[in-house]
Amino acid sequence: MRATYLYGAGDVRVITAPDPKLQQPTDALVRVTRACVCGSDLHPYHSAPASADGSSIGHELIGVVEEVGAEVTTVTPGDFVIAPFAISCGVCEFCRAGLQTSCVNGGFWNDPDLGTAGAQAEAVRVPLADGTLVAVPGVTESTDETLLASLLTLSDVYGTGWHAAARGGVTRGSTVTVIGDGAVGLLAVLSAQQLGAERIVLMGRHQQRTDLGRRFGATDVVAERGSDGIDRVRDLTDGGSPIVLEAVGHLPAYEQALGIVRPGGVISRVGVPQYADAHVGWNLFGPNVTLTGGPAPVRAYIEQLLPAVLDGTVQPGLVFDRTVDLDDTPAAYAAMDAREALKVMVRP
Amino acid sequence: MRATYLYGAGDVRVITAPDPKLQQPTDALVRVTRACVCGSDLHPYHSAPASADGSSIGHELIGVVEEVGAEVTTVTPGDFVIAPFAISCGVCEFCRAGLQTSCVNGGFWNDPDLGTAGAQAEAVRVPLADGTLVAVPGVTESTDETLLASLLTLSDVYGTGWHAAARGGVTRGSTVTVIGDGAVGLLAVLSAQQLGAERIVLMGRHQQRTDLGRRFGATDVVAERGSDGIDRVRDLTDGGSPIVLEAVGHLPAYEQALGIVRPGGVISRVGVPQYADAHVGWNLFGPNVTLTGGPAPVRAYIEQLLPAVLDGTVQPGLVFDRTVDLDDTPAAYAAMDAREALKVMVRP
Repeated sequence: MRATYLYGAGDVRVITAPDPKLQQPTDALVRVTRACVCGSDLHPYHSAPASADGSSIGHELIGVVEEVGAEVTTVTPGDFVIAPFAISCGVCEFCRAGLQTSCVNGGFWNDPDLGTAGAQAEAVRVPLADGTLVAVPGVTESTDETLLASLLTLSDVYGTGWHAAARGGVTRGSTVTVIGDGAVGLLAVLSAQQLGAERIVLMGRHQQRTDLGRRFGATDVVAERGSDGIDRVRDLTDGGSPIVLEAVGHLPAYEQALGIVRPGGVISRVGVPQYADAHVGWNLFGPNVTLTGGPAPVRAYIEQLLPAVLDGTVQPGLVFDRTVDLDDTPAAYAAMDAREALKVMVRP
Repeated sequence: MRATYLYGAGDVRVITAPDPKLQQPTDALVRVTRACVCGSDLHPYHSAPASADGSSIGHELIGVVEEVGAEVTTVTPGDFVIAPFAISCGVCEFCRAGLQTSCVNGGFWNDPDLGTAGAQAEAVRVPLADGTLVAVPGVTESTDETLLASLLTLSDVYGTGWHAAARGGVTRGSTVTVIGDGAVGLLAVLSAQQLGAERIVLMGRHQQRTDLGRRFGATDVVAERGSDGIDRVRDLTDGGSPIVLEAVGHLPAYEQALGIVRPGGVISRVGVPQYADAHVGWNLFGPNVTLTGGPAPVRAYIEQLLPAVLDGTVQPGLVFDRTVDLDDTPAAYAAMDAREALKVMVRP
């Protein structure tokens, strides 16, 4: 089959890789209907060391089950499924608590321990299929493209934006500031709006993106960064935002969050931190600010978020502004890296 | 009057200072019945630069109101009062939310903006008396020494331990690990026990202190530190403690907390961080750990904690293991610094 591999910084190739096969009785084989490129894929795209063998890449997909192992009971061949970016067993303590990213039996795509490959490919082997996959009755490969796009966001970015808002404690009437106008930031805006936030300030500089943010529910947009951005948000929120959703992962975004959060408030991070250490001394401690968040257990949110996607109440798939065929995945990386595209869908 | 001043690292002196006077109509003058030395006083005791003028010190006191300004309505001369370590107005947004340490009109003892001096003295001027002080009917300067000691802990260490437990989300059946066997750590144990925790692991090496911790409700004591301590707690808690209360403030204690916290768990800090930056990258983010806490708004907790202190259900004052006269305050610092004393009461 054809699959996307990363051979080093900036070096993405689509190659012929071995077809995936069932290995365990709990596996499923899924033919990929749509995959996509994530903002977090850009981190290795920037920094991966050169490698002769390369490594497969991609962690977001929807598709159709082709084959299942003998112990799989919740999906059958022909089912249309959403595959979250984390593999999870569904039965361990953490899965039962809705923290599938900490599943003691699971892992991720491209995970040597689990023997998984990447999702930007024609097909994938899905370990622990019962715990991982969610079947969506009534949807097929020929379902309307707009709906497919929205379903694909449930594999990562929508659930991740939702996690930011949920961990941040957004509720009816909340004032929320979202840092970052990437797909996750915009879907954090949508999630905050769905959870009833009254005031949603979006920090971002790309008008096309922030316009979509307004459509998703942002009430204010702040294009300034650094101390100007901090001053502007503190002004808009009368002294600081009680809830800050950090959807970038770079240190300046964290520092921005520290600058705008209100005493007693919450910073909820879902951008994968590209730093090890950061300021958690008096600036965080003194005003009793809570720092929370992490990789989203999107599996925990799919059933909850699905109905409004299926009936068209929300259209998270609007974050996709480009689609490429699988062979053009390298161009998808380049377009997102150049910020010419917000999020690119890959069609195998 | 006599008052304690710090002139540099290790240089504590009791000097004759000007008598405090009412300055604002919202002030009260309080004669100090008992003050004490705090673990956090040891930080400037270790690091303060030498100064010819020195600065007054101390932030925990109980006493008797001697005089009030014209606008003070909640306390009158002769009232026995508890003074929290933060001055607060009681009416601003943050005071109403129970976050008096972020009061927009308040501040702390030894605060140039408020013109306050330190509490290790014969008397203090208390700004914003209505918001700050809590009168305790029925108590006088000649009340039983044991009860006075427990009332004094409500000015800081008991409320601070309580804040750790409350922010950590301790509830009936919780498993909690407390890092630190100082007065705050021991009172975090007591607080966790009062909130219904089932398993309370206390990390500390001084047996006299950890014995008191057991009396306050610790079910297990771990004397090891570093990776041995982490292994031991992870073993005792079957893979990590869902709630960790960090009552030290030094970087190794934070790293200890990171090492023992369970995925999805909470680290609640109340030890004033003696570091600016620390690890908040994947180690904190990956397992979705929440970092919370800060300086305790003890004013918010006094009414709630007072009844069990007054009727003897709890005896937080057991953390005091030495009492000195005001003139011997320098010896109190030396004894606490040498860890010969857990917490020293000062009797003006």
